[in-house]
Amino acid sequence: MREVWIVGVGMTRFGRLSEYGVREMAEEAVFDALKDAGAKPSDMEIAYCGTEAMGPDTPMLVGQIALEQMGIKGIPITNIANACGSGSNAVREAWLALQSGLYDVAIALGVEKLTSPHPDMFQLLSRLGGADLMLEGCMGFFPPGVFSMAALKHMELYGTTREQIARVAVKNNYNGSLNPKAHYQKPVTLEDVLNSRPVSYPLNVLDCCPISDGAAAVVLCGADVAKRFTGTPVRMRAAAQKSGTYKDDMDLNADTTRRAAKEAYEMAGLGPEDIDLAEVHDCFTFAEIQHYEDLGFCKHGEGGRFVEEGHANIGGKVAVNSSGGLLAKGHPLGATGPGQVNEVVEQLRGKCGKRQVAGARIGMTHNGGGFRHGDTGIVVSFILEKLK
Amino acid sequence: MREVWIVGVGMTRFGRLSEYGVREMAEEAVFDALKDAGAKPSDMEIAYCGTEAMGPDTPMLVGQIALEQMGIKGIPITNIANACGSGSNAVREAWLALQSGLYDVAIALGVEKLTSPHPDMFQLLSRLGGADLMLEGCMGFFPPGVFSMAALKHMELYGTTREQIARVAVKNNYNGSLNPKAHYQKPVTLEDVLNSRPVSYPLNVLDCCPISDGAAAVVLCGADVAKRFTGTPVRMRAAAQKSGTYKDDMDLNADTTRRAAKEAYEMAGLGPEDIDLAEVHDCFTFAEIQHYEDLGFCKHGEGGRFVEEGHANIGGKVAVNSSGGLLAKGHPLGATGPGQVNEVVEQLRGKCGKRQVAGARIGMTHNGGGFRHGDTGIVVSFILEKLK
Repeated sequence: MREVWIVGVGMTRFGRLSEYGVREMAEEAVFDALKDAGAKPSDMEIAYCGTEAMGPDTPMLVGQIALEQMGIKGIPITNIANACGSGSNAVREAWLALQSGLYDVAIALGVEKLTSPHPDMFQLLSRLGGADLMLEGCMGFFPPGVFSMAALKHMELYGTTREQIARVAVKNNYNGSLNPKAHYQKPVTLEDVLNSRPVSYPLNVLDCCPISDGAAAVVLCGADVAKRFTGTPVRMRAAAQKSGTYKDDMDLNADTTRRAAKEAYEMAGLGPEDIDLAEVHDCFTFAEIQHYEDLGFCKHGEGGRFVEEGHANIGGKVAVNSSGGLLAKGHPLGATGPGQVNEVVEQLRGKCGKRQVAGARIGMTHNGGGFRHGDTGIVVSFILEKLK
Repeated sequence: MREVWIVGVGMTRFGRLSEYGVREMAEEAVFDALKDAGAKPSDMEIAYCGTEAMGPDTPMLVGQIALEQMGIKGIPITNIANACGSGSNAVREAWLALQSGLYDVAIALGVEKLTSPHPDMFQLLSRLGGADLMLEGCMGFFPPGVFSMAALKHMELYGTTREQIARVAVKNNYNGSLNPKAHYQKPVTLEDVLNSRPVSYPLNVLDCCPISDGAAAVVLCGADVAKRFTGTPVRMRAAAQKSGTYKDDMDLNADTTRRAAKEAYEMAGLGPEDIDLAEVHDCFTFAEIQHYEDLGFCKHGEGGRFVEEGHANIGGKVAVNSSGGLLAKGHPLGATGPGQVNEVVEQLRGKCGKRQVAGARIGMTHNGGGFRHGDTGIVVSFILEKLK
């Protein structure tokens, strides 16, 4: 397998960016990533853009349009739509293209505009769910319902408490308060979470990630050509991707994560004990608890205690969502995955200021998308390593 | 470069398939392709689905949903949206994944539902155009306008006649009348075309491809593992992809095709004189005339005479659109590219009955998508070869 390095990252702030259209956000992220890499637009040989094109101003071929504005054109450009995992999928396809040996340098971009009013709210909500619209979405089986069912089951089976679940929001909003690019930058208390507006028991509104606008980009290359660029490189040890198997079992949304993590650890020759920090898909507080277990950071059933005891804090066993995660940093679908990569790369470079994870050498990302019949439609997971 | 073979193809009929939803169409195409290959669902290691998700019943993750119904699950599945070229893009990504050596067997699917009423007709039309919605689409600069402008320029510069342009429709509808899977299966006369309802001068309604429903699928593998399957294989000599450079020059929509063709010929070590048949993107009659020239089948400016003199007929120098092309076979966006591959594979296998191109050994596909500032957003081109 070819060794691939990330040499540049860039992203907009995530949030309600009413002054930005899709293309302006994409351009800012691409500009920053190229600048960070010390790369010219003409250095890019292949490109991928992850987006579910939710914004009403999103044109077809948004990747072509945004990249052309930045001088990247003529090369193969592929737009990818894979629900909330679209952006990580784009990064993974870029990595796969470099594996082919036919290309040496790639750029992956993710962008989404979610806060503008959409002309067809039902379509938007159904699609946002990433559910099977015909079988589940039409019956109102949207994400909060799915994750609240999973949470209730976890509470019943393992004694996980409502307070433990809420602690994920407290941790991630605290981390977000240290991240100038986060959608929410204000700490919340346990009481704030427990007393916030109910959505779907046990989840309240502060247990749910916001709807955000944003864009993020990543420049990747074969390690053999990395000397062309000046950005501090980070090694990609693994790039795993799995879709669901839909076993209709009791493990709501967990199996795909476990299989993707297994692939990532095997590819990297590493285990969960090696991970210093992880950006995981905390679309809901409870989801993060599930991910601790499925990524192997703690035993099955112990996720609630893991967060309660501070093991997921910056400075804990594994710093989970040091960026603020989807809950505080925000969740602009296509941009979420490349945004996670931005955080891990900057952490491994030691550039994260107040939220820096001390001595971080190995970081992981976990980005999911869609659900159906009790399983996730797509999970992409990367393991990145600081160069010696 | 790894040698890749196509071992199975399948497709629905294209047309107004009111009794089919997106997933039923996709399932039929996948089933047929697996059966043709003699492959099991579990043989597939990676999958791509090309669709612009135009149908109002199209869920997110349509590839995952349709493939799961056919028993293909758990593997990486990526949904690709690249305007009218989405499906060929999916086939090309599958080929690229096989080039990485990390996967041996892949399936690429394309599907689109266009004939159902869409809740937001303006959005649909704007997106259908594949234009830059903000700069061009909003001003009504939809595909018929783009291609009629190009046609008028060609007529003025090269003396191409209205009748020569109309002959493309006569040829392709004749070919379509021999194809039981075509949307339109009735021959038309030159007078029919010239007297049909005007759309945008010089193009009448019979100069425009229809809006169709349909799905098509392709099973690809490394030549080194092809003995696992029983489908008569076809060799992929080239898989080229380019995006536009948007030079704002006089060559409306032509430059991307020329650059993709150059890449395809170089990769195959072949030239236009070697091509026995070609499925090209005849979204409008005039477009096909342009493609003859840009793919090198005749000199620049001689496309009108090329069709008039019968060189593009079955039995001519290059049989162009033996399937009926987009004009008669139909144009269900995501399915169009894999549909072209279906035709070329079946022609090289000698399985095309009344429309069989005698002695066909080398076939080409050309699938474009989107336009902007006088250039095409994406062109994908394959060159396929009959095995000795």
